[in-house]
Amino acid sequence: MNAPEKITLFTLNGWSAQQLAAVEQALSRWVAGPADAPAPAGLGDAMRYAVLDGGKRLRPLLVLAACEAVAGNAQAALRSACAVELIHAYSLVHDDMPCMDNDVLRRGKPTVHVKFGQAQALLAGDALQALAFELLTPDDDSVDVATQAKLCRMLAQAAGFQGMAGGQAIDLASVGRPLTSEQLHEMHRLKTGALLQASVMMGAACGASSQAKQATPAAQRALRDYGAAVGLAFQVVDDILDVTADSATLGKTAGKDAAQDKPTFVSLLGLQASKDYAQQLLAQALASLQASGLKNTNALHALADMLVNRAH
Amino acid sequence: MNAPEKITLFTLNGWSAQQLAAVEQALSRWVAGPADAPAPAGLGDAMRYAVLDGGKRLRPLLVLAACEAVAGNAQAALRSACAVELIHAYSLVHDDMPCMDNDVLRRGKPTVHVKFGQAQALLAGDALQALAFELLTPDDDSVDVATQAKLCRMLAQAAGFQGMAGGQAIDLASVGRPLTSEQLHEMHRLKTGALLQASVMMGAACGASSQAKQATPAAQRALRDYGAAVGLAFQVVDDILDVTADSATLGKTAGKDAAQDKPTFVSLLGLQASKDYAQQLLAQALASLQASGLKNTNALHALADMLVNRAH
Repeated sequence: MNAPEKITLFTLNGWSAQQLAAVEQALSRWVAGPADAPAPAGLGDAMRYAVLDGGKRLRPLLVLAACEAVAGNAQAALRSACAVELIHAYSLVHDDMPCMDNDVLRRGKPTVHVKFGQAQALLAGDALQALAFELLTPDDDSVDVATQAKLCRMLAQAAGFQGMAGGQAIDLASVGRPLTSEQLHEMHRLKTGALLQASVMMGAACGASSQAKQATPAAQRALRDYGAAVGLAFQVVDDILDVTADSATLGKTAGKDAAQDKPTFVSLLGLQASKDYAQQLLAQALASLQASGLKNTNALHALADMLVNRAH
Repeated sequence: MNAPEKITLFTLNGWSAQQLAAVEQALSRWVAGPADAPAPAGLGDAMRYAVLDGGKRLRPLLVLAACEAVAGNAQAALRSACAVELIHAYSLVHDDMPCMDNDVLRRGKPTVHVKFGQAQALLAGDALQALAFELLTPDDDSVDVATQAKLCRMLAQAAGFQGMAGGQAIDLASVGRPLTSEQLHEMHRLKTGALLQASVMMGAACGASSQAKQATPAAQRALRDYGAAVGLAFQVVDDILDVTADSATLGKTAGKDAAQDKPTFVSLLGLQASKDYAQQLLAQALASLQASGLKNTNALHALADMLVNRAH
């Protein structure tokens, strides 16, 4: 009766718990330097506050799941997982600042600028972005240089003007203006979709140097499609939850988009049609996984499902 | 009488003019995307405004001069030159914002947040940092992947919490507080020194893959020392000019450090001792060049001299 159970079926909770333990440990080790050489003058505190002890870590999980699907380099994947999370975390820090969304609550805690002041928040965000690229380029042989360069390229493109920052600029310009469905899609494809998709593709890129298991071009394309569908679904669900959930459940201020007259999928399509759309995107994502021909896609499958059917 | 003169002597003006033409053209091509796929919603305008048509381009010139000294890959050097300038430019954009230095004038023009608003300035800075890493990782064979990875690592470290961002955090915490000479040095070693030194070392790293011309470890160390001396001298001279030059000459608000009660080399050492110190650092930089054993150091020599003896 006390013998350990043998777990044979994949469960997302079990898998995630294992992956997240590694991610949290790595983040804790890498964010803002070792104990004997910490980031100076409170910067390290602000950086750690922005990153540690909070967040669903969806992007790291996508990286790790995609790496698993291609049986890639686990060290490269762990570094990539942390790097995408740092980019995500920095974007939240800057996005919350008074000149942007002016949000005071994030993950149920005061936002970084409320806690540390605007100047420190600005710097912490900047330093987190730099650290993301530092993590991707270790000065040892744990990640081959071709993969290092490729991961940096993918992350830089996903974070920059053709990705997240570009999407945020469209978002800024869109407040109080009606957007067409096409414009709304474009905004979200860049603002949140690019980094989510990059998470999947970076995980897949961690397999690039293991010739035997390298994903075929068709599998790469399928993972790209999966990433695009999942990235868009995430935002549709975010828009739905902004209307249907309360602040305590979300860990951030609910109803904010509507209050700021920001265009959302719900305001454009209506609530029910948005829910249908999210399910349709989930089906697309799962179909892409099937088309990839990759065997070990349990985690990618379960993550897509969780992401669309989440309550917060 | 009309026959072209044969130029046999190195002149910094002649060399710089040629290098800067290439840098300006490259920045103009690379900042915020091609004409048919520009950065969206005004973001590209803010990015270009922050980078183009202004600045001494000291960091790019240091990259190119160091690459020349090791006969490195010119394409890698040009990308590195632009990347360090993008990091410098983004830091100025963020540094000028109201929550930091609240400066309204930069290079004789309204600062980015005055011209485009704070939110767009924040995003433009963020996007410029990402673009720096994108430039270092071209998806072709112009720069070998080992050099790409190394350049990303060097730039990330110089820009992050162990470099520029860390120095800015110390700066933030230092306003109105007396610093020791050691603390002031540490602040500037990080805040401005790290990126200037990285410019030199990145230029030198562009020679890493050309076996025949690769700088010896001794030469690498000498260039590192040169970069450290030049980086520190730059800040000492900046502090001197903040006291001795006027805003029109500087292209930014003069006397600002004293007005904000910021510790400077002049406030710590006095004006004459600061001038002596700058000359002493110049002598150190030139001695390091000599010790490097590298032949083609004309440009590095002239840049150090110009940097210390500049009037703005």
